[in-house]
Amino acid sequence: MKNARKHALDIFRASLAAADPDQALMRAVKFDGRFLTAGRRYDLTRFDRVQVIGAGKAGRAMAQALERLLGRRIHGGCVNVPDGGAVPLRRVTMHASSHPVPDERGEAGARRILQIAEQAGPRDLLLCVISGGASALMPLPFPPLTLVEKQEITRHLLSSGATIHEMNVVRKHLSAIKGGQLAKSAWPATLIAFILSDVPGDDLATIGSGPTVADPSAQEDALSILKHYKIAFPAEALHETPKPDDPALARVKNIIIGSNRLALDAAARKAKELGYRTLMLSSFMEGETREVAKVHAAVAKEVISNGRPLRRPACILSGGETTVTLRGKGKGGRNQEFVLAAALALEGCGEHVIFSGGTDGIDGPTDAAGAYVDSSTLVRARAMGLDPRQYLHNNDSYHFFEKLEALIKTGHTGTNVMDVRMILLP
Amino acid sequence: MKNARKHALDIFRASLAAADPDQALMRAVKFDGRFLTAGRRYDLTRFDRVQVIGAGKAGRAMAQALERLLGRRIHGGCVNVPDGGAVPLRRVTMHASSHPVPDERGEAGARRILQIAEQAGPRDLLLCVISGGASALMPLPFPPLTLVEKQEITRHLLSSGATIHEMNVVRKHLSAIKGGQLAKSAWPATLIAFILSDVPGDDLATIGSGPTVADPSAQEDALSILKHYKIAFPAEALHETPKPDDPALARVKNIIIGSNRLALDAAARKAKELGYRTLMLSSFMEGETREVAKVHAAVAKEVISNGRPLRRPACILSGGETTVTLRGKGKGGRNQEFVLAAALALEGCGEHVIFSGGTDGIDGPTDAAGAYVDSSTLVRARAMGLDPRQYLHNNDSYHFFEKLEALIKTGHTGTNVMDVRMILLP
Repeated sequence: MKNARKHALDIFRASLAAADPDQALMRAVKFDGRFLTAGRRYDLTRFDRVQVIGAGKAGRAMAQALERLLGRRIHGGCVNVPDGGAVPLRRVTMHASSHPVPDERGEAGARRILQIAEQAGPRDLLLCVISGGASALMPLPFPPLTLVEKQEITRHLLSSGATIHEMNVVRKHLSAIKGGQLAKSAWPATLIAFILSDVPGDDLATIGSGPTVADPSAQEDALSILKHYKIAFPAEALHETPKPDDPALARVKNIIIGSNRLALDAAARKAKELGYRTLMLSSFMEGETREVAKVHAAVAKEVISNGRPLRRPACILSGGETTVTLRGKGKGGRNQEFVLAAALALEGCGEHVIFSGGTDGIDGPTDAAGAYVDSSTLVRARAMGLDPRQYLHNNDSYHFFEKLEALIKTGHTGTNVMDVRMILLP
Repeated sequence: MKNARKHALDIFRASLAAADPDQALMRAVKFDGRFLTAGRRYDLTRFDRVQVIGAGKAGRAMAQALERLLGRRIHGGCVNVPDGGAVPLRRVTMHASSHPVPDERGEAGARRILQIAEQAGPRDLLLCVISGGASALMPLPFPPLTLVEKQEITRHLLSSGATIHEMNVVRKHLSAIKGGQLAKSAWPATLIAFILSDVPGDDLATIGSGPTVADPSAQEDALSILKHYKIAFPAEALHETPKPDDPALARVKNIIIGSNRLALDAAARKAKELGYRTLMLSSFMEGETREVAKVHAAVAKEVISNGRPLRRPACILSGGETTVTLRGKGKGGRNQEFVLAAALALEGCGEHVIFSGGTDGIDGPTDAAGAYVDSSTLVRARAMGLDPRQYLHNNDSYHFFEKLEALIKTGHTGTNVMDVRMILLP
C-alpha cells in the first residue's frame, strides 16, 4: 500500500514533467547549429532574424527554453506574461500584463507583438509561444472598438447565457490579433507556434483564441450571435478573420508541445512501467466533481468485483477539469473534493489509492495541488473523530486532508494542462 | 446511422433476454427426467416432495418456469408476489402481498412459506425464487415485534440518517425469515435458491435481505446501530441469525440467474457480434444522472478524438442505477434524462447513438423504458423549435423525446436488473 501511494506520486510527477513548458519545448524542438527541427526542418542560415513572440502564463519558461536552445540566434521579441512572471530574459522582452481581466498594458504588448509580426519579412523566423491565459494577456480590440467596450460586450454575452463557443466566435471577429490574425500579419515571414494547451480536445483554434490558427468561424456567425443576444457594437469593428485556405498562412506551423492528453500519456506510460494495467477514461472529463467521483469509483468497483474492464493491478486515469458547486463554507478545490468524494464511494471496498492533482499546482483557492488517500485514510479520519461526509458537505476538503497530512503540495508548477486523476488498485 | 439505432435496440433486447426471469431460469436449470442440474446435479428420485417457495416481483414468472420444467414433479408451494401479479398457477400458490410498503397479507404469506420450510424433511427439495421486492413482499417480524412496530423502526432509522447497510443489519436481526433464517428453517431439507439480483454487486446477503444466505452481520451490530440512533425496540425480538459456518445451511445452494452484470455481459456479447469494440465501464454506476451523462460523453469524446480507450466502431456500456434530483416540473425518468444530458454533451461531436433503458420497462413515472437518440436528433429538435436545455432544466425529458418519437416502449418486462446505458460510435 505504501508502494501504491508512492506510485501515485510517481505517476503524477511523470505527468507534470510532460506538461513542464521547458521540458516540453526541449522535447518538441531540436537544434544542431544549422537546422531547427520542429515538426519540420528549418535551415536557420535562410533567416536573417529569429524573434520570439506570444503570450501566456508559461510564456517566460517557454521563451527561456528557446533562448537556451538557440542562444545568440535569437535577436529579440516580446512575450506578454502575467504580473510576477515578467522576470527579464537575455533577449526576449517579458511584457507584464493583466490576467484574467485584460488591461491597457496587455493591449500595448499585443500591439508591439503584432508590429513585430507585421514588420517581419521573408527572411524572418518568428517563434510564437502560446499557453493558458494568452487570450486575456494579449488583447487587441479592432478599431474603433476599445478595450472597455470589448469587455462590456463579453460581460453582456456572459449574462445573456451565450456559450463559450459563441463568445469565442464574437471575440475573434472583434479582435485585431485573435483567430489567425497574428499569423496572417507575419506573412511573408515563417512562423512556428509552440502551444501548451489548456483546453479539452486541444482545438488549436480555441487555445488562446488561436492567434496563429485559421478561424473556422465566419464574420456572419459573429454577427448573428451579436444580433441574437441583442448586443450593441460598432459595426466597423466587426471584420473577417483568415480562413484555412488563406495563402498568408502557408508559412505557419502550429505544434502542440504539451496538453492534458500528453500529460495523461506520460502518466499511463509511468503506470505501465510500475506494473499497472491502465485504463485512460478521458481527457475531456467535466461535470460536478462529487458526481464525477462516484462514476470513477463505480469503474473501480467493477475492477474490484469482476476484474473488468481490466484486471488488477489496475490504474484508472482521467484528465480534463471538473467543477464544484459551492454549497458549504469550507476551503478546498475540485481535486481535493474529488478525492474526498471518491474515498467515501470506495470506503470498505478494499485496497486502493485515490489521487487527484491540478497540473498548475494550485487547486482552487488553496496552496495544494490536490490530495491523495489510500484505503486506510478514512479509517484514520474516523479514529480521529473526523466525519468525512460533513467535510464534503461543507466543501471543506482542504481542512480534512490537512489534518490527515494527505495534501499534495508542489507549489506553482509554471504550467497548466488541467487535472490528472487516478485510482490505483494494486 | 440507421443501423446504429437498430443496433442499440438489438443490444438492449439482448440484455432484456438475459434478465428475463423465465429465460434466465431456463438457462440456469436443466432437467432430464431424473437429474436436476442447477450449479450441482440433484437426483430427483432421492426426494419425495418438491415445493416452490419465495417472493419477489418476478416470483410468478420464475415459479411458472419451474412448473413448466418439472411438471408433476412439483407438489406445491407458496410464493409472495405483488398485487396484480398473483394470477394463479397450476401447482404453486401465488400469494398477493403489498409492495413497497409491507402489509398483513405479506406477513401471512411469509408465515406460510416459513411453515413449508420448517415442515420439510430430508427427502424434501425446496426451490426458492427470490427477486426484486422480496424483502417487502415477505415480511415476518420476530415476536413480540409487530409489523407496525417494525415499520416504525425502519422509519426512525431512515429519518436518523442510517445507511442502507445499517437498515439491513437491523432488519435481519428483527425478522424471523431474513438473513438466512428461511434456509436454516428448511434443514434437513435440500434448498436451491434461484436469485434475480436487483442490487449493485449482487451481494447475496443483500438481495431480498438474503432469506437463504448466511448473514455476515452479528446481533451486536444490530444492537449498536439501534443504540447509536436511539431507537426503542422490544429486546426479546432481537436475536442472532445463521452464520456462514452454520451446519443447518449445508444443504443450501444459492444461484444468481440474472443480474445487471449478466445483462451487461449479454449486451456486450451482442455488441461484439454486431462488430463493435466494447468497453463495459461499470455495473455499479450511480450518481446524479446529468453529471453521470457528462462523464459517459467525456469517454465518448476521447474515443472520437483520440481513438482511446478503444477505437471505433465502439460501444461504451454501463449499468447500475443513477438518481435524479427533481428541480423542474416536467415528466421523465433517469434513463430519459441520461440520454438528453448526454446528447447535449455530445452535440456536434459527429456520428453517435445514445441509449438508456430500465430493464423493468418503466423509467420513472412514465410508460417508457427509456429513450435513444442519434446525432441528428438534436438537429431535428432545434428545427422543430424545441430547446433541449430547457427540457433538461425542467426534468421534462419524456415530453421532449415524445415529440421526437425517440422513446423506447417495452411495457412491463416482468424483471428488474437496473439499467442498461450505451453510447455507440459507429
